[in-house]
Amino acid sequence: MAKVNLEEKFSAFSDHWSPRVIAEMNDYQFKLAKMEGEFVWHNHVDTDEVFIVVKGSMCIEMEHETVRLNEGEMYVVPKGVMHKPYAVKECHVLLVEPRGVVNTGDAEGELTAENDVWI
Amino acid sequence: MAKVNLEEKFSAFSDHWSPRVIAEMNDYQFKLAKMEGEFVWHNHVDTDEVFIVVKGSMCIEMEHETVRLNEGEMYVVPKGVMHKPYAVKECHVLLVEPRGVVNTGDAEGELTAENDVWI
Repeated sequence: MAKVNLEEKFSAFSDHWSPRVIAEMNDYQFKLAKMEGEFVWHNHVDTDEVFIVVKGSMCIEMEHETVRLNEGEMYVVPKGVMHKPYAVKECHVLLVEPRGVVNTGDAEGELTAENDVWI
Repeated sequence: MAKVNLEEKFSAFSDHWSPRVIAEMNDYQFKLAKMEGEFVWHNHVDTDEVFIVVKGSMCIEMEHETVRLNEGEMYVVPKGVMHKPYAVKECHVLLVEPRGVVNTGDAEGELTAENDVWI
């Protein structure tokens, strides 16, 4: 495989809440997403989900706390935990999760993105 | 869990080639390592391995090519592929691999680090 430059990959798309796959390891995928505004409340019943902020800042609202992530910070949302990501200004995020995970989890709807879209 | 600030975690240790665990998702671990000088040739028979350069630059020598990774670049070493990481100057790297993976893979020796050391 070729190496992946995160900034180059981010510059190749502009829509929000629509993760692009940049790499796979075993049965896990590394995805880039641009986030701005509010996402939907959802959870992933079968898996934890990793958020690593590459640029900007975002929040992950959960039932009992809201975590604010700035550039260079990461958070693992445990499986089954309801969460709502949001970002006041555009934020660039690296996501890690098993292949096949749907961005809206149990809450499919308008913001559900096509899966397995590579960039 | 608490969020993880990568820079803070890197500032808390100084030895080279000795990965520290900073987070787990499912049965995978996110580890930080400082690399400087040459590591040993080795491979991981059962798993791919992800390198993400957070600061500095490093190389991964393989049989048929050498990949140079700069800040903000990532590479997946496929399972079973012999590789030798090295860094001329100190480089800060985020590693992702299944829990239990030994840093020197099949080539245990002087540089084999203790596993599951959290920071």
